[in-house]
Amino acid sequence: MSVPRPGGPSATRRSRAADRTAPALRPVAWAGGSIRLLDQTLLPDRLADLEIHRVDDLIAAIRRLAVRGAPALGIAGAYGVALAIVQAAREGWDGSTFTAAVGRLRAARPTAVALAQGVDAAYARIDDGLDAVVAVGGALADADERANRAIGRHGADWILARLGDRPLRVLTHCNTGALATAAWGTALGIIRELHARGRVELVYVDETRPLLQGSRLTAWELAQAGIDYRVQVDGAAASAIVGGLVDVAIVGADRIAANGDVANKIGTLGVALACAHAGVPFVVAASASTIDEESAGSAAMTIEQRPDDEVLLVAGRRVAPPGARAHNPAFDVTPAGLVDALITEQGARLPASPFTR
Amino acid sequence: MSVPRPGGPSATRRSRAADRTAPALRPVAWAGGSIRLLDQTLLPDRLADLEIHRVDDLIAAIRRLAVRGAPALGIAGAYGVALAIVQAAREGWDGSTFTAAVGRLRAARPTAVALAQGVDAAYARIDDGLDAVVAVGGALADADERANRAIGRHGADWILARLGDRPLRVLTHCNTGALATAAWGTALGIIRELHARGRVELVYVDETRPLLQGSRLTAWELAQAGIDYRVQVDGAAASAIVGGLVDVAIVGADRIAANGDVANKIGTLGVALACAHAGVPFVVAASASTIDEESAGSAAMTIEQRPDDEVLLVAGRRVAPPGARAHNPAFDVTPAGLVDALITEQGARLPASPFTR
Repeated sequence: MSVPRPGGPSATRRSRAADRTAPALRPVAWAGGSIRLLDQTLLPDRLADLEIHRVDDLIAAIRRLAVRGAPALGIAGAYGVALAIVQAAREGWDGSTFTAAVGRLRAARPTAVALAQGVDAAYARIDDGLDAVVAVGGALADADERANRAIGRHGADWILARLGDRPLRVLTHCNTGALATAAWGTALGIIRELHARGRVELVYVDETRPLLQGSRLTAWELAQAGIDYRVQVDGAAASAIVGGLVDVAIVGADRIAANGDVANKIGTLGVALACAHAGVPFVVAASASTIDEESAGSAAMTIEQRPDDEVLLVAGRRVAPPGARAHNPAFDVTPAGLVDALITEQGARLPASPFTR
Repeated sequence: MSVPRPGGPSATRRSRAADRTAPALRPVAWAGGSIRLLDQTLLPDRLADLEIHRVDDLIAAIRRLAVRGAPALGIAGAYGVALAIVQAAREGWDGSTFTAAVGRLRAARPTAVALAQGVDAAYARIDDGLDAVVAVGGALADADERANRAIGRHGADWILARLGDRPLRVLTHCNTGALATAAWGTALGIIRELHARGRVELVYVDETRPLLQGSRLTAWELAQAGIDYRVQVDGAAASAIVGGLVDVAIVGADRIAANGDVANKIGTLGVALACAHAGVPFVVAASASTIDEESAGSAAMTIEQRPDDEVLLVAGRRVAPPGARAHNPAFDVTPAGLVDALITEQGARLPASPFTR
């Protein structure tokens, strides 16, 4: 493997002003030799960018969830390979240093298949030079935005056909919006589409502990879009659903096994169980690339365990006694049998049909 | 109705030093003319008392959960009537001022039947003088501690008979320990008893948002008792249960309808649904007085809605965007059909038998 030389930065610079236009906000952008990330850990207090010049800084940003969400991670993974090329040229890396850096990046979040896919797609083009590698990230972003908008249309169609063409009370978990994707969103993309059709009465937003992606990020995106919402603790989801406050639950996915089992943010399984108990449709929205044909079932999935302090410290303040330890899985697995519809850019797939491409 | 005159403070003073002895820690005590509360909002950082001299200060302390838990609220309600007598004498209240103050106290937490019961039991004795009223609170506390220890024995017996006599992995939600009761605890009392028998391997403690009674209070009590535990976000309960990490879930109850429906801390229903899905026993522990014979089913229960800021602010820091609103029910209702056993001081009641006394 040869390490290609970087191209000029201006060739690939994206307009950040255009990227930021809501709802086509883009959380990850190539900035001609570096990666610009909207630092999601600062929202909703501050809208500020991170400028990333080193692969290990990107890995750290991914690990602390400055950038997160399966599609956004895929794009970050592709641009990360481009960043490795630039850094390798700048610092005179040999091939093995380069390969090791890309490998660390690929494994930064073990459950999200999109990150590894983005790295792999970009890595396959490195012999074609930096611009080709950057173009992989840009193509992923463009394809993801198109996929998201198609997911929104298919999802809204399916839900309104199932529930009747009326304003709906929707529950969602975690953040699956423009911040988690190239733009627009998956589950939140369906909510945006329903809203555009005048069919959203209210969105119940699970706050999504430990890192509060619901109250910090989804609430912020809904407020920007002018969609009415209520934030609730994750423990309130079951009673909202069983108590008749929710017409449909819509969530994203970090990885979907070939048998239809869905790995998504911790707490998703509880939403699915409550929906099954109450007869409320449980809808998963994800790009088709989230389906991992190589994992036949969820047993083979690696569930990322995250640091204890995410649970034991809240907003920087320790809430548990000294010596406390935590159980902090990032994801849970919802069995395919609890999923009423999987919405991809190709349309709605029902559990009866296998979730394979 | 006449307002009785207060008796001497020394006659009813309890030894706080003896009260504090773990595990017989007592969160509520009559201090001869005032009420002493262990301020649970400060735990686990600080172990500090509140000295309450006015009924409205007691109501405020109850509302902000400085004292909480159904049995502890019952005792606080009874002592609160005594406090009203002392305050009435000191401030020259007329009968209607007294009655109004007691009525405000009785309604301070609408879902917990124990608070109203404690107020009513004490109110029935006001013509017998302060000492008689104080004695109602003391008798409630003594009876509650005896009941808790019986609940512990019956619960441990039932669980070990059901699951086999082996070390168990237990999940619990909210705080049902010495802090929530007169002493010892209900669900946590069973865990203490199992631990005393060498039958606790590990306790999964749901952190219990919004006010984190699990990570702040239950974790603290378990640490004091030397019981191994892990704190987890509430959203992790379902996957821990469905994923085979939990042998039994044990929770308390704030109110139980005559048909067996259980009102308890928000998030309990999700635990019950996961247990039903996984075939893991879901055990409710409460004194028999928690059963409200007058509420035939949960439909008649008032579910307390608490302030938005409990959800939108975490550890004093705002986590949601400006203008955000919350859905913040304090409790949810678990249908009787999801309860494998209700453990009271009288033994285990199974769903097949009506949950009435």
